[in-house]
Amino acid sequence: MNKDFTFQNPTRIHFGRSAMSHLSEELRLYGDNVLLVYGRNAIKQNGIYDQVMQALTVAGKRVVELSGVKSNPTYAKVLEGCKLVREHDIDLILAVGGGSVIDCCKSISAGAYCPIDPWKYYWEQHQPLVARVVPLGVVLTMSGTASEMNSGSVITNEEKKIKAGYHYPMDKLCPKFSILNPEFTYSVSRYQMVSGIFDVFSHLMEQYFGGDDDCVSDYLLEGDMLALISAARAALKDPYDYEARSNIMWAATMGLNKILAVSKQEDWEVHQIEHQLGAYTDCAHGVGLAIVSIPYYKHIYPYGLHRFVRFAKHIWQVNPEGKSDEQVALEGIEALSGFIRELGIPQRLREVGATEEMLPLIAESANKIGGYHVPDTAEVLEILRECY
Amino acid sequence: MNKDFTFQNPTRIHFGRSAMSHLSEELRLYGDNVLLVYGRNAIKQNGIYDQVMQALTVAGKRVVELSGVKSNPTYAKVLEGCKLVREHDIDLILAVGGGSVIDCCKSISAGAYCPIDPWKYYWEQHQPLVARVVPLGVVLTMSGTASEMNSGSVITNEEKKIKAGYHYPMDKLCPKFSILNPEFTYSVSRYQMVSGIFDVFSHLMEQYFGGDDDCVSDYLLEGDMLALISAARAALKDPYDYEARSNIMWAATMGLNKILAVSKQEDWEVHQIEHQLGAYTDCAHGVGLAIVSIPYYKHIYPYGLHRFVRFAKHIWQVNPEGKSDEQVALEGIEALSGFIRELGIPQRLREVGATEEMLPLIAESANKIGGYHVPDTAEVLEILRECY
Repeated sequence: MNKDFTFQNPTRIHFGRSAMSHLSEELRLYGDNVLLVYGRNAIKQNGIYDQVMQALTVAGKRVVELSGVKSNPTYAKVLEGCKLVREHDIDLILAVGGGSVIDCCKSISAGAYCPIDPWKYYWEQHQPLVARVVPLGVVLTMSGTASEMNSGSVITNEEKKIKAGYHYPMDKLCPKFSILNPEFTYSVSRYQMVSGIFDVFSHLMEQYFGGDDDCVSDYLLEGDMLALISAARAALKDPYDYEARSNIMWAATMGLNKILAVSKQEDWEVHQIEHQLGAYTDCAHGVGLAIVSIPYYKHIYPYGLHRFVRFAKHIWQVNPEGKSDEQVALEGIEALSGFIRELGIPQRLREVGATEEMLPLIAESANKIGGYHVPDTAEVLEILRECY
Repeated sequence: MNKDFTFQNPTRIHFGRSAMSHLSEELRLYGDNVLLVYGRNAIKQNGIYDQVMQALTVAGKRVVELSGVKSNPTYAKVLEGCKLVREHDIDLILAVGGGSVIDCCKSISAGAYCPIDPWKYYWEQHQPLVARVVPLGVVLTMSGTASEMNSGSVITNEEKKIKAGYHYPMDKLCPKFSILNPEFTYSVSRYQMVSGIFDVFSHLMEQYFGGDDDCVSDYLLEGDMLALISAARAALKDPYDYEARSNIMWAATMGLNKILAVSKQEDWEVHQIEHQLGAYTDCAHGVGLAIVSIPYYKHIYPYGLHRFVRFAKHIWQVNPEGKSDEQVALEGIEALSGFIRELGIPQRLREVGATEEMLPLIAESANKIGGYHVPDTAEVLEILRECY
């Protein structure tokens, strides 16, 4: 734990089959005007919309709706939400959906009373948070991003062709409460489920592959990886296995509520590359991460060999006997690739809408932050070509 | 994750060599009157008292002191603190010490404005928290209890000969902030260090030994155990190894800030027995836990065999080949016993001040809550005799 840190995460989590029963008591803590934000009409088909509306009605709230938030939520939608918040003097934003909806809502929370254009204020000028932040509550319907218990918000600015995350202060922009009923995730497609699972696994790896110390956080990240692999395999067999889906849901929340990464050196390069892939192709986030991960890790493992050896042994039970560290590390990456195949995720960028012409544009525009090694544009392009 | 749960832990942690530099910004959030609570004069010898007083002076606070909080803090001390809070209209209680000081402060926080005797109100009548709770901040000087990031308070009522924990609501009684500088733990004796380490290990086992599901929390608890074992071994070699002491400190905080135990069936029987041992002998908490653990687990492992097998394999790398589950489980308990010997902790109750006459009194008065199995008084007495 060599890196000093400050940590706080005040989100109240209600988890389980009965989680929704806590919505009423949460609603009582806020004023009358609620902005209800969701994506497509899925929540109207699976009954979640009705449950939420009933609690809102009983609580006597005036509800304004903002629907149609897409995966890879757009900045235009954020601005639409900001306008509604001001016009209707909103007291609580209620996000019903997955990471896209929640991320959109966080930027509405922070942007509604922003003195200038929020993108310019936060993303470009990195100004401090405005005084008036609108409280946010969450009803989660898809697992993956952990946005339900952190303060990050990834937004696609379509005009500028940039998809980029912004980390608001944890104590102010973490949702006030999040309702997590694993049964609500039954209705997402198998494709979305496995995409979400790999998103979580990628979060854990991005936090894990950095540093050379023997840090508590590394052991906890390994624990979460092992739990996720076990639960993913059970959910692949039976997507309606409550135990499996609930483990995936909590492994996801723990995977990026930041408590497992305190004091860590991290590496978020795979996410940087995928964000630009997403800006160009709109492919499912976790799927993009899976495709990019294998060539990326094959490029960088020599720079953090000790950690890739540990990953192979602790996560994939690679037996190191009679093998060089290089061989052990590569067997670990091969096992990761096998896990991606197990999940049934495509392995080529061409399968998810990328064209050869896009590759240099993605390579050029991706942030180069790295971990054990910072790749340049040429190296990112090489990585993209290897999985094209 | 079969058990539904609500979780919130709002404590802000400042961790590392520079942690104390955050005290000033925290003090600004509260009024002028501070109750400074500590134990013996150790903090005056190692300079921590001076650092704290300087920050308080610069912040212009009026300081009232309550010193002499003992390990196994007494209810009499709680009442003394409650009186001071009311007399001096205290705005912030600042605990400087380990779990005993912090636990004492929590009960002062909750008890100061209690309409009747706080022991009766909380411990006996289980009344809801009073409206006016005095905010609590912490400067931690000894690792173990995780009291710096939870809302539990273990108090010894000397008059009634009861040592018992009380769990206040997390959102109200968790410290507002905690300052964790691993270097501050250098000054505790080796005996206190290993006692603290085993206290943490016991917290992890008590949370782990319960349930038969494949719960995320179990994997995370295992991760914390493995991190702690590794760090403990490094600290035994060199107690001034910052990396080791910082890992112990964070493993301890994570070990009982309750985020690793959500949805868990738990077993706190070893703590129940030790609490009564502590009420009679005043022995170091972690040492008492270590002594009781081995005979206790040897009694209960058949009731949760699958979990003890997992413990042996995942934590102690017991090779199960050609062995029965019973043998594997017992090898795990034997490995735990070896770890206790490595720590240099006494293994007999007679070594820590217990007399044969006390055993029936301890067995009788210990709560019987159990986990996989609930022992009766006769069985607890047998367990005590086995380690006498």
